[in-house]
Amino acid sequence: MADQRTGLWLIGARGSVATTAVSGLLALRAGLAPPTGCVTARPELAEVDLPSWDDLVVGGHDVVTTCLEKRAEQLAHAGVLPHHLLPSLVDGLAAVDAEVREGYHPATHRGAQATAAQRLTADLVSFRERHDLARVVVVNVSSTEPPVPHLPEHDDLALLEAALADPERAVLPPSSLTAYAALRAGCPFVDFTPSTGVALPALHQLAVDLGLPYAGRDGKTGETLLRTVLAPMFTARGLRVRSWSGTNLLGGGDGATLEDPEHAASKLESKARGLAALLGEPVTAPLHIDNVPDLGEQKTAWDHVSFEGFLGARMSLQFTWTGLDSSLAAPLVLDLARLVAAAHADGQSGALGALAFFFKDPLGHDEHRFAEQTRDLHAWARELGRYGA
Amino acid sequence: MADQRTGLWLIGARGSVATTAVSGLLALRAGLAPPTGCVTARPELAEVDLPSWDDLVVGGHDVVTTCLEKRAEQLAHAGVLPHHLLPSLVDGLAAVDAEVREGYHPATHRGAQATAAQRLTADLVSFRERHDLARVVVVNVSSTEPPVPHLPEHDDLALLEAALADPERAVLPPSSLTAYAALRAGCPFVDFTPSTGVALPALHQLAVDLGLPYAGRDGKTGETLLRTVLAPMFTARGLRVRSWSGTNLLGGGDGATLEDPEHAASKLESKARGLAALLGEPVTAPLHIDNVPDLGEQKTAWDHVSFEGFLGARMSLQFTWTGLDSSLAAPLVLDLARLVAAAHADGQSGALGALAFFFKDPLGHDEHRFAEQTRDLHAWARELGRYGA
Amino acid sequence: MADQRTGLWLIGARGSVATTAVSGLLALRAGLAPPTGCVTARPELAEVDLPSWDDLVVGGHDVVTTCLEKRAEQLAHAGVLPHHLLPSLVDGLAAVDAEVREGYHPATHRGAQATAAQRLTADLVSFRERHDLARVVVVNVSSTEPPVPHLPEHDDLALLEAALADPERAVLPPSSLTAYAALRAGCPFVDFTPSTGVALPALHQLAVDLGLPYAGRDGKTGETLLRTVLAPMFTARGLRVRSWSGTNLLGGGDGATLEDPEHAASKLESKARGLAALLGEPVTAPLHIDNVPDLGEQKTAWDHVSFEGFLGARMSLQFTWTGLDSSLAAPLVLDLARLVAAAHADGQSGALGALAFFFKDPLGHDEHRFAEQTRDLHAWARELGRYGA
Amino acid sequence: MADQRTGLWLIGARGSVATTAVSGLLALRAGLAPPTGCVTARPELAEVDLPSWDDLVVGGHDVVTTCLEKRAEQLAHAGVLPHHLLPSLVDGLAAVDAEVREGYHPATHRGAQATAAQRLTADLVSFRERHDLARVVVVNVSSTEPPVPHLPEHDDLALLEAALADPERAVLPPSSLTAYAALRAGCPFVDFTPSTGVALPALHQLAVDLGLPYAGRDGKTGETLLRTVLAPMFTARGLRVRSWSGTNLLGGGDGATLEDPEHAASKLESKARGLAALLGEPVTAPLHIDNVPDLGEQKTAWDHVSFEGFLGARMSLQFTWTGLDSSLAAPLVLDLARLVAAAHADGQSGALGALAFFFKDPLGHDEHRFAEQTRDLHAWARELGRYGA
Ligand SMILES: NC(=O)c1ccc[n+]([C@@H]2O[C@H](COP(=O)([O-])OP(=O)(O)OC[C@H]3O[C@@H](n4cnc5c(N)ncnc54)[C@H](O)[C@@H]3O)[C@@H](O)[C@H]2O)c1
Ligand SMILES: NC(=O)c1ccc[n+]([C@@H]2O[C@H](COP(=O)([O-])OP(=O)(O)OC[C@H]3O[C@@H](n4cnc5c(N)ncnc54)[C@H](O)[C@@H]3O)[C@@H](O)[C@H]2O)c1
Ligand SMILES: NC(=O)c1ccc[n+]([C@@H]2O[C@H](COP(=O)([O-])OP(=O)(O)OC[C@H]3O[C@@H](n4cnc5c(N)ncnc54)[C@H](O)[C@@H]3O)[C@@H](O)[C@H]2O)c1
Ligand SMILES: NC(=O)c1ccc[n+]([C@@H]2O[C@H](COP(=O)([O-])OP(=O)(O)OC[C@H]3O[C@@H](n4cnc5c(N)ncnc54)[C@H](O)[C@@H]3O)[C@@H](O)[C@H]2O)c1
Ligand code: NA
Ligand code: NA
Repeated sequence: MADQRTGLWLIGARGSVATTAVSGLLALRAGLAPPTGCVTARPELAEVDLPSWDDLVVGGHDVVTTCLEKRAEQLAHAGVLPHHLLPSLVDGLAAVDAEVREGYHPATHRGAQATAAQRLTADLVSFRERHDLARVVVVNVSSTEPPVPHLPEHDDLALLEAALADPERAVLPPSSLTAYAALRAGCPFVDFTPSTGVALPALHQLAVDLGLPYAGRDGKTGETLLRTVLAPMFTARGLRVRSWSGTNLLGGGDGATLEDPEHAASKLESKARGLAALLGEPVTAPLHIDNVPDLGEQKTAWDHVSFEGFLGARMSLQFTWTGLDSSLAAPLVLDLARLVAAAHADGQSGALGALAFFFKDPLGHDEHRFAEQTRDLHAWARELGRYGA
Repeated sequence: MADQRTGLWLIGARGSVATTAVSGLLALRAGLAPPTGCVTARPELAEVDLPSWDDLVVGGHDVVTTCLEKRAEQLAHAGVLPHHLLPSLVDGLAAVDAEVREGYHPATHRGAQATAAQRLTADLVSFRERHDLARVVVVNVSSTEPPVPHLPEHDDLALLEAALADPERAVLPPSSLTAYAALRAGCPFVDFTPSTGVALPALHQLAVDLGLPYAGRDGKTGETLLRTVLAPMFTARGLRVRSWSGTNLLGGGDGATLEDPEHAASKLESKARGLAALLGEPVTAPLHIDNVPDLGEQKTAWDHVSFEGFLGARMSLQFTWTGLDSSLAAPLVLDLARLVAAAHADGQSGALGALAFFFKDPLGHDEHRFAEQTRDLHAWARELGRYGA
Repeated sequence: MADQRTGLWLIGARGSVATTAVSGLLALRAGLAPPTGCVTARPELAEVDLPSWDDLVVGGHDVVTTCLEKRAEQLAHAGVLPHHLLPSLVDGLAAVDAEVREGYHPATHRGAQATAAQRLTADLVSFRERHDLARVVVVNVSSTEPPVPHLPEHDDLALLEAALADPERAVLPPSSLTAYAALRAGCPFVDFTPSTGVALPALHQLAVDLGLPYAGRDGKTGETLLRTVLAPMFTARGLRVRSWSGTNLLGGGDGATLEDPEHAASKLESKARGLAALLGEPVTAPLHIDNVPDLGEQKTAWDHVSFEGFLGARMSLQFTWTGLDSSLAAPLVLDLARLVAAAHADGQSGALGALAFFFKDPLGHDEHRFAEQTRDLHAWARELGRYGA
Repeated sequence: MADQRTGLWLIGARGSVATTAVSGLLALRAGLAPPTGCVTARPELAEVDLPSWDDLVVGGHDVVTTCLEKRAEQLAHAGVLPHHLLPSLVDGLAAVDAEVREGYHPATHRGAQATAAQRLTADLVSFRERHDLARVVVVNVSSTEPPVPHLPEHDDLALLEAALADPERAVLPPSSLTAYAALRAGCPFVDFTPSTGVALPALHQLAVDLGLPYAGRDGKTGETLLRTVLAPMFTARGLRVRSWSGTNLLGGGDGATLEDPEHAASKLESKARGLAALLGEPVTAPLHIDNVPDLGEQKTAWDHVSFEGFLGARMSLQFTWTGLDSSLAAPLVLDLARLVAAAHADGQSGALGALAFFFKDPLGHDEHRFAEQTRDLHAWARELGRYGA
């Protein structure tokens, strides 16, 4: 499927992750940076038939107007982008910025959600046609939403569409409305955030009906990545984890959003689910996300694991992870665009469980162990396109 | 092979690891403790036909006379063994202590090394016969030796045996002389230390000739365990490790031994080899082992990993591991005794590469990634006895 | 004042801190342990005339019945007390346990608080008389209470005593009722907890009227100790702290109490007040106290300080403190008993600001910097008894 | 003494510390940055009569030719200087660079050391005269030297000067030759490095004879700063430190120099002296300095302190310090220039012990405790100029 021009449509296109992904793509295309952090550039995936960096065309939705060039400057100041690259990226950033359309904002929208969805769908179709793209992968990298109460309409497509048409209701959170619009435009959908997104039975049904693949959710870039790597070690060695405590300090847009306990809830829930699954039993696991604005784009996570060994011996492991979240997330966004495009070309539909590797809370797969996820990813990718279109 | 009485012969039988292993075996047998930290007690290995805790009979060599009861008291004081267990273990410890024979000490031995080897072999044969054992697995948990210069005799069994007979020479370090004696007694050999032991071409030849399996070397219980778990994460994610610095603080007998830079050398070498293999390229990797007597049996390791992500972003991971080394090592010694006994019963010979899971510097296998080692171990164990004796 | 038999009356006499203090006092008296962690044993205070270990007689109040011998065994198991000391301490612990009376418990008490106060006062007077003590210092080491709303009765002794006599009201929290009873018995009072205790204007008035000294509050034994040591460094060097984040993991009785956010509130408040005072400006300072039962008596605190240097350079300091809280607190309880007894003998009354050294939230003094507190303590102690009774 | 134009002459004027100090001075002067990290800008020193930022004129010696503008760019890339400041600093940097003269290099110098000293002295005198300066403070911020063997000539000025005149000998290390030349030019001398510098009896004599003050040595900016803050806490609380282990990871020019164990020796020695002095007894204190080039200007220090409390309880403190060394050092260099200039104006001579606050290995004072050093500094500074010129 190389040489097939492929769209990458970012929900939250002017956020940190999106801006870093776009800047990086421009740099990769210009040969100004190696693909460090890109999983699809690993030798293990070298043979897989994927869209090349040159094949990707980027657009997106956002609800703010600060342009990508400005955001890139801020990210250079924050240590995410190298200052010396900026001049070479300005034109490319402006070109992408010109493809950013106004997103759906629940606070400003008037009328039925269906109307909003139609507008979003139209944006996607227009983008695909104007650029003559084989397909467009929609990736949600917008602000994390609070968890939403489950409604009967979420389980049944007919009920859902009826509710969407009702101007008095707002039955879907923005992420799910966006997912709905993407599917209706015939686009595969990836949820890089912990928001609800496509993870509703009615939307799953729609994806399967339309033969569209989707993947999610919540990109795994820090503390959870380490947990899915370390927890299997304790298990394999028969060591009994007694408590796993964690504190995350982060600034940036994401820090501000997650400061609100309601927004943090979905993040904390997805993290807790994973840990219990990994250890096979519930352990004491206090977990905090603190907004520390002065840290900017840097995220610092401290974990303290207390475990028991032979004859009850008490031991511990602590780690401190100091990451630039957007630097970790951005290459994965590009990877997901390439892999999901290939899955679509291959005719796959529904949740792509083999992409669990990328997510804190994998859809379509119960595997949380990183090494097994790595193996699953490689095996799946090697099969891609073998019997495909 | 359950119900086959099996010997476990410990070189360094009065050391910390040995005393903890024996105490734990007694506690397991009496139902006083769960098999925490025992890999052979994991559900994944539940079906494997292994000697039971009741089937194991323990003896060993040492060069000190402090009895096991005394050593167990010291280890309780150091937090390795629980005080309340001691009274129930006293009789069992005394029984094992009665099976400890004088080891080979290069400084006190007079005459040809062959004579010493014959005595060690005789001790093993006598032990096997007196207790009517199906087999005896010899496990080296004695003090770490300095690395030895390679000699031509190490490559050729005939040359080696000629040199052993020469009263003027001491061609083998103690660990290798012991391995030689074990093989000559028809016993499988496991090297839990970084010493040379069985890892010489001439001894490999002897093991193969006699149809004996062996495994090693250097039990993986702390910093290296974590490295073999964490390094593959960076690789799988395409993140570039730039430096991996480490400091180990330890007291105890092992701390005192490794304070001597000559003795530490073999430990440091085996650690460096592993890291380079894991990362696929050499990185700056300063590494220290410090003797800090007041820490007693506790080992504290601090590692600082500096890595590079997308567009050159600089990030880091630090961890502090606080382990009780003997508590981590002892259950593995019991696991190895059971697994190597089963391999012997199964007719396997030479290096058991599938046991790489247990070792810093695996013999017979190049795999350093912990998750792959885990998979290899499980696969191998499930085959054990399938076509065996 | 040496050779004056002095009472130490512990509120919460069967808690971890109290049991450790009593065990330690017995060991010190028997010459079985050096006074490690005792500030009054430092050379700087060698000349101060204080009651000796032999002069101290201990009793107290508690609301549980588990005896001190049993509690000491639990603390040995938890690593706070050395196993080998227990046999030598059993008799002494039983003797103290025989001096423990039932404390005031708001949930079980019926009738006016004044009645309860009279009973507590009577217990103290009886103790002083039966043992022929020069004075009795009351030290509160009972469970932390939630903060209480301020009432007009707290500001005026007459109003307060009227309310205490009303059987329908419970105007004082237990710690303050206890402080009231202590003062009414003519006893100096020390609050080692963050509870309200003596820190009410009406009780201050009573202390001054009766010529009684008091000290508090909230023993400084871990994270806060470090903060009062480290924050002045940043200030003295002109470095600008931008955020100071903290997480405390603790088990034990204190962990269980503080798990309740209402109880934790007073602890968190006293910590935040201190940090702002030290840095001279408010900084982002998220702080958590997590109950991690498996840690037992061990407390682990992680702090992350982000600071700015010359030309805006961004730097950080992290620390991990792993303390046995009761081991840190107990010698200070003994120190406070000795020092406050001497202040009483010296005729001092009201808040002893010079004891700020010992507390997170010092009464009678605004100084939070540890080095200045040390100097103040030494200077004050050297003056003690110079013009005294 | 404000309004007295004052010279600051940097030995190693093109190094990281020097470049940062100069850049910062230019930024301060232009009002582009606040004096974060400058001790002389603290309110406690507000009343002291010191040269202002505008009064300082900078020149120096170095043995490399990379100009200051280039070095500043490199430091911006390394995160030490903010990118956006560079354009405003270019002219000022060029002006200072024009005042940099060739330093003394032992490997390239031919002839008697006296000749070299005369040239250095002449450079200083010319600088003072050309700029019409009231005085010039010489600050050594050049590469750390290996420790030198003590010679009889180091103790006696006459012997020393005779040896300096001998073309066959090189009796002084570069730092001491420089100090000699500075004194001969009538300039106060500050040693910010651990090199020998002015710390020889013969040079002390010369300083006193000429009525010149000096200060040193080895700027205290990281691990040692923390040690001098933390160790007194353990002491004041009667807690017994059992071991204090440290590892320093650093890149940059300093990292490369200290990789050589010979050069590191003087650094390690000065650190060890301090720790023993602080704790009052020798403790196990392994210490490492590792060159980790990829860390660039960042220094990461990990310390692990194991200590004993009441009844032998075992506890620990760890910290990780992540500093930009040059950002920490540079403002202190400016502080020292101002303070030593004032001391000179005040007529003080010999070692300025009150400046111990700034140094790992203070000359003229035995005080290592940071809080006491702070107090000494403030007290001394307040007296400055009171009876002076
Ligand atoms: N960076 C990581 O490592 C990582 C990992 C996992 C998940 N995530 C998730 O990725 C998301 C983006 O993170 P970020 O750091 O870029 O955050 P950010 O705050 O910088 O960017 C979010 C962007 O989404 C936009 N947005 C908000 N609501 C929108 C809407 N209704 N429609 C369209 N756009 C909308 C915002 O205007 C903003 O530009 C977050 O949800 C975060 O939780 C990030
Ligand atoms: N504990 C761990 O986690 C771990 C991990 C990997 C390797 N190891 C290795 O295991 C070994 C044992 O560790 P330990 O902590 O028990 O040390 P230890 O010092 O407590 O015990 C070593 C014992 O070996 C005995 N010994 C010395 N020379 C001997 C000889 N020639 N013959 C027979 N006995 C001899 C000593 O007398 C002592 O009793 C060390 O080599 C160590 O490096 C331990
Ligand atoms: N250990 C430290 O380092 C430290 C430091 C600062 C403050 N403190 C405070 O010291 C107190 C004691 O800590 P601990 O670890 O011993 O806790 P703990 O739970 O082990 O002991 C508290 C004791 O108080 C008793 N108690 C509860 N209510 C009472 C009442 N109304 N009257 C009399 N007794 C009562 C309980 O029964 C228990 O025996 C806590 O408030 C804690 O916050 C401890
Ligand atoms: N940065 C800190 O926090 C800190 C703290 C304490 C001490 N120091 C000391 O400060 C010194 C400078 O550190 P840096 O990071 O700037 O190092 P650097 O390597 O960047 O700079 C040293 C400079 O000295 C020059 N030099 C070498 N030999 C010389 C000579 N004979 N005459 C004149 N110049 C010479 C070099 O060419 C170089 O420009 C080092 O000795 C370091 O140990 C620094
Ligand atoms: Na982010
Ligand atoms: Na406690």
